[in-house]
Amino acid sequence: MIHSYNEWDPLREVVVGRADFANWPSNDPVFAQESKKTTWQETPVPSGPVPDWIIDEANEDLDILSAALEQCGVVVYRPKAIDYQSRGGMYGYCPRDRLLIYGDTIVDPAMMYPCRDIETEALEEVIYRANTVHRMPRNEGMTLDAANVLRLNDTMLYLESASGNQEAARWLQHKFPDVCIEVCNFYSGVHIDSTIVPLREGLVMVNASRVNHSNLPNVFKDWEILWAADVVEQGFYQYPYASKWIALNMLVVDPTTVIIDKHQTNLINTLENYNFTVVPLELRHSRTLGGGFHCVTLDLVRQTQ
Amino acid sequence: MIHSYNEWDPLREVVVGRADFANWPSNDPVFAQESKKTTWQETPVPSGPVPDWIIDEANEDLDILSAALEQCGVVVYRPKAIDYQSRGGMYGYCPRDRLLIYGDTIVDPAMMYPCRDIETEALEEVIYRANTVHRMPRNEGMTLDAANVLRLNDTMLYLESASGNQEAARWLQHKFPDVCIEVCNFYSGVHIDSTIVPLREGLVMVNASRVNHSNLPNVFKDWEILWAADVVEQGFYQYPYASKWIALNMLVVDPTTVIIDKHQTNLINTLENYNFTVVPLELRHSRTLGGGFHCVTLDLVRQTQ
Repeated sequence: MIHSYNEWDPLREVVVGRADFANWPSNDPVFAQESKKTTWQETPVPSGPVPDWIIDEANEDLDILSAALEQCGVVVYRPKAIDYQSRGGMYGYCPRDRLLIYGDTIVDPAMMYPCRDIETEALEEVIYRANTVHRMPRNEGMTLDAANVLRLNDTMLYLESASGNQEAARWLQHKFPDVCIEVCNFYSGVHIDSTIVPLREGLVMVNASRVNHSNLPNVFKDWEILWAADVVEQGFYQYPYASKWIALNMLVVDPTTVIIDKHQTNLINTLENYNFTVVPLELRHSRTLGGGFHCVTLDLVRQTQ
Repeated sequence: MIHSYNEWDPLREVVVGRADFANWPSNDPVFAQESKKTTWQETPVPSGPVPDWIIDEANEDLDILSAALEQCGVVVYRPKAIDYQSRGGMYGYCPRDRLLIYGDTIVDPAMMYPCRDIETEALEEVIYRANTVHRMPRNEGMTLDAANVLRLNDTMLYLESASGNQEAARWLQHKFPDVCIEVCNFYSGVHIDSTIVPLREGLVMVNASRVNHSNLPNVFKDWEILWAADVVEQGFYQYPYASKWIALNMLVVDPTTVIIDKHQTNLINTLENYNFTVVPLELRHSRTLGGGFHCVTLDLVRQTQ
């Protein structure tokens, strides 16, 4: 069974990604096109296999994350290892991007990079556990990475960006007629989860460099807002596939427990002041590979309270 | 793409089953229980691997059927060959039983014999082509074989029987709110497709030994009814897994073309009188294995006219 309607209910079962065979797609037309738009000029956009030492370190960190989640009583699944390098794919590092889960339903979206369709195979056993699977048609003008969407019970907050367009939002609304799909577009990058971090019902952390009172999504109008003015910038290898704001990409284990980058002392203080138990961990390659604790996980079961 | 809303629109793509590794389940608790209820006392209910010569002859007939469909311009898919004998499953002979297709959606029902879940694997590539897949929860009191349902555009006619209960009908109604699920229960066996045979919009053949004016489904109240009083009984090997009425189990290729058992001279005459082009073929083991031309096929695409 799959059962997850929001980002904060007590986590019972989760997928934790894996870095094996991580690869920067060299044959994906969209990936190539996006690479040309980069504002980072100091080093070239990487292409081809990710160095083994990065893969190994990333996997070490993912194993530690898995163990920490198991210690919290969460059942952890890992995607199948697929040779993305030989097949021209990307990676299994960010299952959050690949599948959107709402209730007992899985959406298999038409991702921005077509080569990422391969990642679905690594999650086949997960997909099989859904009661309903909606596959978004490919090549019909819809683009969506699952990480463009946050689940807030009756609302899905949908970031319109390079990886999520209006057509896909309309399709999603059609598939979930009882859910309000609220479209926001305060950030021209890709995913939503380094910008908006729902912590529990009524409390959300917001990236103050991208969101302000005037473009705050309507769904939060009665919520308490924690404005994150800055984060502690972490390093990366050669090319930053994520900005420093990946630091906000945390995983809520339950409405009082959060897994967060251990270097984020200010954020940790803020969360502790709000009576959160903070589990400080590390993903050394969150910027190199482009994924924090929310990205590298995919919650399958959160217990409705 | 999958696209099929009824039993008669022009067939474009279809699955034709295969008999490889056919097996009478020896470990399935429901199969064992049902076997005890048999009214056939002359030979025991078979158990274990189906003899190779039956498998071979059945496959020959399925290959001929496939070729005939291809001659009609239909694209034919075959399920993957799975070793049902070693895995305690049943067979890939009747894809009709395993998946229910409506429009671009596939329902993966909780079949009466749990061991038949294995058959889904043989159809994975088909399932992947659906835009939506609904998996009926197992072990929650719902039972449904896909062949309990006939698709009649706005209505699904649902036979309540040992292989289809009220709970599953309600679930189906919930998943397809815009479709009328009409429940009928004129036949205490299993599937519907040797009792009711829709031939085209407004014309249906009906098994007169099971259906009469008083229990005729409401959906047919304005249809012309062809009452089939009897059929030419065919043989079987050792144990009849289907009654003589499997003869009615025909495949409508388009509203003027029907594939039917070549021995059914009366039925063929009747159909020809209604201006059908009849393609007479043979499934020598339709009674031994329990599947006629409708059972052994699964239409993926029928062109909406």
